[in-house]
Amino acid sequence: MKSQKTGTAAKAPNKAERRGFLRNATVSTAAVAAMAASGFPKPSLAQGLKKWRMGTTWPKNFPGLGTGGNTLAKFIGDASAGKLTVEVYGGGEIVPGFETMDAVANGTLEMGHGAPYYWKGKVPAAEFIASMPFGMNVMEQNAWIQFGGGQELADKVYRQLGCKFFTSGNTGVQAGGWFNKEINSFEDYQGLKMHIPGLGGEVVKAAGGNVVSLRGGEIPPALQSGAIDATKWVGPYNDLAFGLYKSARFYYYPGWQEPATLLDNFINIKAWEGLDSEQKAIITTANAYTNLFVLNEFVSNNNAALNTLRKDHGVILKKFPDPVLNGLGALAGQVLRELAAQDPLSQEVMDSILKFRAPAINYAAFSEQAFYNARSLPFKYVR
Amino acid sequence: MKSQKTGTAAKAPNKAERRGFLRNATVSTAAVAAMAASGFPKPSLAQGLKKWRMGTTWPKNFPGLGTGGNTLAKFIGDASAGKLTVEVYGGGEIVPGFETMDAVANGTLEMGHGAPYYWKGKVPAAEFIASMPFGMNVMEQNAWIQFGGGQELADKVYRQLGCKFFTSGNTGVQAGGWFNKEINSFEDYQGLKMHIPGLGGEVVKAAGGNVVSLRGGEIPPALQSGAIDATKWVGPYNDLAFGLYKSARFYYYPGWQEPATLLDNFINIKAWEGLDSEQKAIITTANAYTNLFVLNEFVSNNNAALNTLRKDHGVILKKFPDPVLNGLGALAGQVLRELAAQDPLSQEVMDSILKFRAPAINYAAFSEQAFYNARSLPFKYVR
Repeated sequence: MKSQKTGTAAKAPNKAERRGFLRNATVSTAAVAAMAASGFPKPSLAQGLKKWRMGTTWPKNFPGLGTGGNTLAKFIGDASAGKLTVEVYGGGEIVPGFETMDAVANGTLEMGHGAPYYWKGKVPAAEFIASMPFGMNVMEQNAWIQFGGGQELADKVYRQLGCKFFTSGNTGVQAGGWFNKEINSFEDYQGLKMHIPGLGGEVVKAAGGNVVSLRGGEIPPALQSGAIDATKWVGPYNDLAFGLYKSARFYYYPGWQEPATLLDNFINIKAWEGLDSEQKAIITTANAYTNLFVLNEFVSNNNAALNTLRKDHGVILKKFPDPVLNGLGALAGQVLRELAAQDPLSQEVMDSILKFRAPAINYAAFSEQAFYNARSLPFKYVR
Repeated sequence: MKSQKTGTAAKAPNKAERRGFLRNATVSTAAVAAMAASGFPKPSLAQGLKKWRMGTTWPKNFPGLGTGGNTLAKFIGDASAGKLTVEVYGGGEIVPGFETMDAVANGTLEMGHGAPYYWKGKVPAAEFIASMPFGMNVMEQNAWIQFGGGQELADKVYRQLGCKFFTSGNTGVQAGGWFNKEINSFEDYQGLKMHIPGLGGEVVKAAGGNVVSLRGGEIPPALQSGAIDATKWVGPYNDLAFGLYKSARFYYYPGWQEPATLLDNFINIKAWEGLDSEQKAIITTANAYTNLFVLNEFVSNNNAALNTLRKDHGVILKKFPDPVLNGLGALAGQVLRELAAQDPLSQEVMDSILKFRAPAINYAAFSEQAFYNARSLPFKYVR
């Protein structure tokens, strides 16, 4: 989910589009200022109708992600009987994907759909909200947002960006990535050339890896030439569409680096505050619908795509060995603590997550984790 | 979640209320007919305002379940700016909890909130929609409903009940139950006296257990006197409130019998069809909000309650041994296949679930399950 182009996105996205998915780039404000001055039509207020525009960080209709923004816009329009309509623009259509936050903050657009870690250059704490290596899974993250103080903290972070925050989708746990070198011991990370952005990349770096930052389209040739040994992408659904099985031999799991990646809907704070309570309730529930819809789409399509990767493309699945995961887990904690210590708001977010995560781990061992493990026993269930 | 009274429900619920939670009872229509004739005020249509009434199978404000109905009603009212308001009634307030479906079907109430397995006496397939022993967890169940054909099948089942169906909450995986006898081998189920209703009870029966059906309030004394050796209830949040730790020594996991229990919102089909597309969108998104809200409440409170049970009440957690789970899993498949074979619609639902479940198991092993297991390794993450 870090670089934009995949097999199904099709039709050679331009450079700005391809960059839209990369979370490490910095966001320039020049283009936004240019756009703001360029005379795009302003929202119509005729007949009390609000016509809003949503920018997204991904190309329009991008599988699993772009479709989330479409779903959100559709239900806002339907539930308001057209009194509040939202037109969706893909990354690059009004502003480049990466500049969506600036465009929303300055009112060029009323809302955006993306992922919190795209905004870490502006507010580092945003990255901790998106996903933390060895942090919470999606069930825990949703519960933390609603009942663990997460919504209030995310609103505080997004307030600094000039926006109101909503959770608006989730990928669930991502895949570990595509490797042409086997990872048999923790030492195998020494010198490993890997495309892995964000906090996961910081951990790989700390483990001795050589983290390489590439655009989406550069990844397959880099894997084929040996310029990189491995890459992280999203999960089976997007990875199959991108065709990464053609360039790498091993598909590693689990995606310890992003155990649940939250998507955000951010709304210009003045536009939000100008809504009546009816419209606020509509946006709140439409985001909940979208949050579940996106996750359901990922779960459903990942199930099928993993099957296809194994059966039709002979992909070899490999679990990171436990000693490797144990080493990465310890390192992740250390890296996160050091990063959080540099920024009080990041520290506040991380402390809140750690407080929620501790009992959640014990409860998972008693509930979901134990059930998954029980269901994997060799008994025959179906005829 | 089968019997109604818990510690926090308080104030001695009457007999009808206490029975409302029991899912094995049959639903009589006598009281509903009486209510329909008794002159409760009919919905007001003045000024184009719709005033609906929701009956619930649980007591008003019951933790995790009753609060789901409240949340649903609140967001329908808010998002419609009061043009469609829903007044919530607990089980026993207008009709006994169990008779909510009849009251909605005959138009005494416009909608209800409960769980599908309460209606199995009317349409057996409803029980398969609620939860299947060793079936799908909540992420999979939600994805099946939205993308696996589940919504269409549930609508078909509820159409036979005269209603439109919505998913409106989920408990996640429940606990295995409270035991005063240890389960060390599959043979320990021989003669085990256990309160465990529904499909899980059928499996325990097939394993040689003696399944006893009790009302909620009867369970603690029965455990204390040895009239039963074990009981299933919900999970840490509700079980702590009910005080079951005072009557049983061991708290077993995982809850193989209900890996995700879906809550339903059912709407009189004519009332539903009389809505405009705006109101339909509002109810659809309010249910999605409620679905997540209920799960989030369970996750959040279960985390904390398990901690309290262990630390403050010295509860001993025990995992069912793998050979026991393996035996129960095989038996569950057999019991479910036999039950489904007796009813074409149950067979259709079960076939659809099995088709979704097979690749989901492989994907879980690559994703959520593998992540949970990685996160449980002994590394030090927090200071």
